[in-house]
Amino acid sequence: MPAPYLRRSPLVQEDKASPNPAVQDFYPEDVAHCYGCGRLNEHGLQLKTVWEGEETVSRLTPRPFHTAIPGYVYGGLIASLLDCHGTGGAAAATLRRDGREIGDGEAPRFVTASLQVEFLKPTPLGPELEVRGRVTEITDRKVILEETLSAGGVVTARGRVVAVRMPETMVR
Amino acid sequence: MPAPYLRRSPLVQEDKASPNPAVQDFYPEDVAHCYGCGRLNEHGLQLKTVWEGEETVSRLTPRPFHTAIPGYVYGGLIASLLDCHGTGGAAAATLRRDGREIGDGEAPRFVTASLQVEFLKPTPLGPELEVRGRVTEITDRKVILEETLSAGGVVTARGRVVAVRMPETMVR
Repeated sequence: MPAPYLRRSPLVQEDKASPNPAVQDFYPEDVAHCYGCGRLNEHGLQLKTVWEGEETVSRLTPRPFHTAIPGYVYGGLIASLLDCHGTGGAAAATLRRDGREIGDGEAPRFVTASLQVEFLKPTPLGPELEVRGRVTEITDRKVILEETLSAGGVVTARGRVVAVRMPETMVR
Repeated sequence: MPAPYLRRSPLVQEDKASPNPAVQDFYPEDVAHCYGCGRLNEHGLQLKTVWEGEETVSRLTPRPFHTAIPGYVYGGLIASLLDCHGTGGAAAATLRRDGREIGDGEAPRFVTASLQVEFLKPTPLGPELEVRGRVTEITDRKVILEETLSAGGVVTARGRVVAVRMPETMVR
């Protein structure tokens, strides 16, 4: 679980914690700074991804300034959530494929090779957003996830992420 | 041009102004609040999109916390820039198709129907990022743009945006 010294970002609402362990809490410390999902990024979204059965799930309540047209969530936030949920889901799925669960040691780190977002309808700004993912392909190097994003139970966007294992050369 | 009362977001670097007029400065006031590109969003990125010949261009220097793996830009920001540049480019292209240029009255407002991002290589965090777009299809209702994102002259991502005219029903 996250160490007590970690500071929460002002973008994070305290009510969105899940009882299930989040894969981002087990990223190695030197690669846990992503603006979208890094627990060590004090300015960022600190997205958390957990298992719920066979699906990976992330939840986040946008802030009022995450607007597009007034009243709706801006597309870049939706793309960010689908992106970071994709790499988190890839890490969770790789652990499970290897007979481990989230929390059984460090989680592997993935980066995004490809992201596709279909905006089906405007996403209302206000309700908590929920991203759900299912793995459709998994190899040693690559994981593909199909995702939905919903607000108040209504699916407003679909995503597809191709995540690949982070190259060792990326860590400085 | 933007009214003098507008406040710049702390995310915006002052050195990135272009001498060419930016389409976002001519969005109607009631739809100029997007976190990615709204001139009236004091918390957001305030992306600007201008013409350079036949290409639309947006430039932005990320802040240090816009990180993925340390040293690199997080994918959600790249997706956001490609997304907002896409709707801005669609507006600019629609003006030009109708015999107008940016600044000839209000600019039309588009929303994103579909966004595709290919992350070709890690994008270094530090240099100014440049998004360039070309229109490949334009109708009364829909504009498709192909985009590149580069850092220090090296293309690190490609995007494709399908932008559609904002439905009147979205304005509250």
